[in-house]
Amino acid sequence: MTAPALITLLSDFGVRNTYVGQLRGVIAGIAPAACVIDLTHAIAPQDVLMGAVTWADAVPAFPPGTIHVGIVDPGVGTSRRAIAAEIGPWRFVAPDNGLLTAVRARWPTHAVVELDRPEWHRTPRSATFHGRDVFAPVAAYWSRGIAITALGTPLDSPLVEVALPVVTRGDGELRGQILQPDRFGNLITNITTADVPNDIAPDRFLVIVADRTIKGIARCYADVAEGSLLALWGSSDRLEIAVSGRSAMETLRLDRGAEIRVRWDG
Amino acid sequence: MTAPALITLLSDFGVRNTYVGQLRGVIAGIAPAACVIDLTHAIAPQDVLMGAVTWADAVPAFPPGTIHVGIVDPGVGTSRRAIAAEIGPWRFVAPDNGLLTAVRARWPTHAVVELDRPEWHRTPRSATFHGRDVFAPVAAYWSRGIAITALGTPLDSPLVEVALPVVTRGDGELRGQILQPDRFGNLITNITTADVPNDIAPDRFLVIVADRTIKGIARCYADVAEGSLLALWGSSDRLEIAVSGRSAMETLRLDRGAEIRVRWDG
Amino acid sequence: MTAPALITLLSDFGVRNTYVGQLRGVIAGIAPAACVIDLTHAIAPQDVLMGAVTWADAVPAFPPGTIHVGIVDPGVGTSRRAIAAEIGPWRFVAPDNGLLTAVRARWPTHAVVELDRPEWHRTPRSATFHGRDVFAPVAAYWSRGIAITALGTPLDSPLVEVALPVVTRGDGELRGQILQPDRFGNLITNITTADVPNDIAPDRFLVIVADRTIKGIARCYADVAEGSLLALWGSSDRLEIAVSGRSAMETLRLDRGAEIRVRWDG
Repeated sequence: MTAPALITLLSDFGVRNTYVGQLRGVIAGIAPAACVIDLTHAIAPQDVLMGAVTWADAVPAFPPGTIHVGIVDPGVGTSRRAIAAEIGPWRFVAPDNGLLTAVRARWPTHAVVELDRPEWHRTPRSATFHGRDVFAPVAAYWSRGIAITALGTPLDSPLVEVALPVVTRGDGELRGQILQPDRFGNLITNITTADVPNDIAPDRFLVIVADRTIKGIARCYADVAEGSLLALWGSSDRLEIAVSGRSAMETLRLDRGAEIRVRWDG
Repeated sequence: MTAPALITLLSDFGVRNTYVGQLRGVIAGIAPAACVIDLTHAIAPQDVLMGAVTWADAVPAFPPGTIHVGIVDPGVGTSRRAIAAEIGPWRFVAPDNGLLTAVRARWPTHAVVELDRPEWHRTPRSATFHGRDVFAPVAAYWSRGIAITALGTPLDSPLVEVALPVVTRGDGELRGQILQPDRFGNLITNITTADVPNDIAPDRFLVIVADRTIKGIARCYADVAEGSLLALWGSSDRLEIAVSGRSAMETLRLDRGAEIRVRWDG
Repeated sequence: MTAPALITLLSDFGVRNTYVGQLRGVIAGIAPAACVIDLTHAIAPQDVLMGAVTWADAVPAFPPGTIHVGIVDPGVGTSRRAIAAEIGPWRFVAPDNGLLTAVRARWPTHAVVELDRPEWHRTPRSATFHGRDVFAPVAAYWSRGIAITALGTPLDSPLVEVALPVVTRGDGELRGQILQPDRFGNLITNITTADVPNDIAPDRFLVIVADRTIKGIARCYADVAEGSLLALWGSSDRLEIAVSGRSAMETLRLDRGAEIRVRWDG
């Protein structure tokens, strides 16, 4: 048996309204056998940057060929382009507003088209809900075997990019920042394993956050006593600040944007 | 390949408990190939009216034959009837408490039966969770090809109706009201495109909300400068009051029930 | 047609992050035809006890053979064992930290293995997200027909247990407690129909909560006037304290742990 096509959804729609249900209804009408998976719909409204970062961290869990649909789209209805792209081993459908920036920074872009073929869109097409009327139907048709070249026209100008938070180096340390807390209050940062030498023992790192210095990088949350502060490499290879059994966000009263510094000797 | 049967769920169950998971378990046990889609489970507890309005706005995204299950059911366990109905191109399963009022106002009712055949219900049947014990199994069996006439007995008295908020006309204007905010803080109203003449240019409308007058009806949220108030026709043909890039609900401090007036010249 | 394999997920992950989406991506990559159902992801962070109770109440809605994956796992990455088990008519995958206690108290355990075979795990395996890297892939392979004996090694020591809240008897009454409120504010207790004689008429019970005495056990929420306090047997056979049409949690200002007493004459 051929595996059913796999389509994921990431958006800032929340789950209080029926917007996500409507996306799924449109997909089911076009590609009834497709398996549709929610990545998250809790991106803050219009927060393209955090949508971009969150998207790049989630897609590696999915098999090649998966179609990832991202909808954080404050410019819906304007002249901003809608695009389909082949990036790394996956396929993407999104507005051209920077939402693909972090994905494209990690994996090579093989092809991009502008979604300018109304035959793959819903009729009539609203000016306020391209998720339902453009992105979902395009993803559904694409999952049925349409070639990307049939979905639209190759781009004649670069994609829009957002400025991702950068890690800087100097004075013998790395400086990064908190991207977002997770549900446990763990503080996820923009510093990854790729930013540090891979030949330094974990206990030779110092992580400085607010006025606190954490000695060494732990392996897991329960490596230290409950209530103790720790730093570890999380499941997406990002440095996380955590408090064992509790919420680091509440304990430290830190959130997005707060500075994190990392030092090591040797 | 035949398309798998499509069943949607709308309820006031929330997602903190396992009620929705249990519905899906029952359906999977009876109709394993059915595709089950959540419309929303965030209807306010026992808010039959808003459930009705939300349901009618969501179903047009679904293909004909879809079975829509709605469970906002404060009278569960009493003598209130449980029903299955064919309305427009879809099928519906719900308590007879008005939850179908807005759907029936827009599409013709072809058939309605009372769900009085225990062979399609779960055994033992609880008195407090007919979603799991009546509505879900009936939907699952129906999706397998049972005729509506086998599910129960034709009704011998009218369905229960709820009073939908009405749009009134007078003094050269329409008066409607806010139904609910969406996740972005856009204020969705009960005024639809069908309420206004279709030959009036968008810039000749005036929308009056609280002490503010909005001139013209915009096409999309980014048609005006960020932070500016606008009115537009939303994705369900309803008039929406929005603030570009922000929350109109927070900016205007308005919520459900607030009056909206629309005027036009010509 | 063979029914597709059924896998359920229960966790403390919430839905703000993409953790649940990543679980589903891993499962879809290994077992594309499996049907995956969320029980809930709203267990409070690291609340193994409430995870255990919630799990046992939800699984009876699922058909035999369903694979239930539970992830409330504060000890992830430590030496705590990961296990697969056949209990009652279902299959389970979980950390060995007591999460299976309530399920095992109700249904017989047929087999348990420790998940010590890396060939069924994701590579590389993180130390912080065994949901994605151990539990999800094991469940996916198991759903494809692998025998439990191939998943790991039979246990050589007892499973970890958590202390479930107990019902005590004395002075002609039962004493139990509130486990948790549901979305409607109904207060779900640890007293079940099995705790009382089955030959006592409902109107001969007295339920004492805070300073209030409820006479008789109702059949459904609308059995009493709106705003009135009632007790009833809920959909999982648990005694519930409710206020018709309102929230008992808000009305009584009670939450988890509050004592409930039940008396009857005869």
